[in-house]
Amino acid sequence: MKKIDVCLSPDLIHLYDLSDKNVVVVDILRATSCMVAGLANGVRSITPFADLEACRTMKDLGYLIAGERGGEKVEGFDLGNSPLEYMAAKVKGQKVAVTTTNGTVAIDRSGKAVRVIIGAFLNISAVAEYLKQKKESAVIFCAGWKGTVNLEDSLYAGALVEKLQNDFANGSDAPLLVQSSWQHMKHDLAGFIKNSSHAKRLNRLDIHADIDFCMREDEFDVVPVLSGQELVVNNSQA
Amino acid sequence: MKKIDVCLSPDLIHLYDLSDKNVVVVDILRATSCMVAGLANGVRSITPFADLEACRTMKDLGYLIAGERGGEKVEGFDLGNSPLEYMAAKVKGQKVAVTTTNGTVAIDRSGKAVRVIIGAFLNISAVAEYLKQKKESAVIFCAGWKGTVNLEDSLYAGALVEKLQNDFANGSDAPLLVQSSWQHMKHDLAGFIKNSSHAKRLNRLDIHADIDFCMREDEFDVVPVLSGQELVVNNSQA
Repeated sequence: MKKIDVCLSPDLIHLYDLSDKNVVVVDILRATSCMVAGLANGVRSITPFADLEACRTMKDLGYLIAGERGGEKVEGFDLGNSPLEYMAAKVKGQKVAVTTTNGTVAIDRSGKAVRVIIGAFLNISAVAEYLKQKKESAVIFCAGWKGTVNLEDSLYAGALVEKLQNDFANGSDAPLLVQSSWQHMKHDLAGFIKNSSHAKRLNRLDIHADIDFCMREDEFDVVPVLSGQELVVNNSQA
Repeated sequence: MKKIDVCLSPDLIHLYDLSDKNVVVVDILRATSCMVAGLANGVRSITPFADLEACRTMKDLGYLIAGERGGEKVEGFDLGNSPLEYMAAKVKGQKVAVTTTNGTVAIDRSGKAVRVIIGAFLNISAVAEYLKQKKESAVIFCAGWKGTVNLEDSLYAGALVEKLQNDFANGSDAPLLVQSSWQHMKHDLAGFIKNSSHAKRLNRLDIHADIDFCMREDEFDVVPVLSGQELVVNNSQA
């Protein structure tokens, strides 16, 4: 049986052999929610950069540049890290280069995987169906916060594990841990997320609408996959 | 308010500043359960070694040597890693040198803490009371399994966070995660633990009695603390 595993932090990814697995990168607040929202709304491609200055140079190549550090938009960049920005008319049909505090680091560390898939609550059922159709085992890779575990990515992992439980066996205890957390919290998700460290940070930046949006399930049915250096919508069933 | 935090793996401990905190090291199956059981039953001291060969040399100094790798007793050692062995008559009054796969590694990485305390379900309330009496913030340090998260250490962390919730604020999302898991699983702990990876490993070694014993709460009221290189029972209220 295929296996599902969960990596709770980029600082633990060295413990996982990704070479024969699909990886779902998740950074709910807000990098991967932005990517899903953007690609579902006509963004042509999204190229992630772990390094901010490398991202900045893409402006000269005609890209819109998107950047966030510590939850705030980078000076001189076209876009910050709000999924609502990624759905604006000016972004449609454009190529976007993006760098964020946690999400793009996790994508960068997923390089050896068979496929790198972008997950968010916004497309959770589409990602679950995609993984079920593939023959490989999978790792859900939580971007966390500067190496530490965070609640919203862990809960997403628990929700996705729950959707996969008839098709995948658990690869370690981490799926059990996050799934039990999800089962405990799912009935009052908004309440628990308000107590999370990340939501408190974002509250300081007045981004309640973003949090509400990022916690919505199945707004979109796109499955962004990494193709070369670019994230694009999976159309090919590749 | 004092803070409580949870480190889910030795590979994440670099993210925590331990220099002004008490650390509770936990390796439920079975290193810290052995330490608590032994010290509660008259073992004079327990000296942890991360390195197996360094531990072996202590035999010449009159210590009983205890060693486990991958769940099995090390060839030529006096004791393995069963809490029941640590309660035998021959161990009473003796000094023990011990090395294990995960638990002694975590103790080794706690060196900078104000105090290093040994936690297990066997002494959970005693540890909670001890932490409440101290002025420092605390980190619960789960030994895990070769770097990965494990269920029984995470659940212990959740149970201890729950006991501390009126006296400590959460230092990150990790306490929220493990506490919710504990709340979901505590009503059928034996059932969930049977599904954990570590219990499955131990099942192969036929050690059901150890698992049952290690999951008992408050069998003992000792609080082992590291004093120099030795774990001893806290008598001094230091």
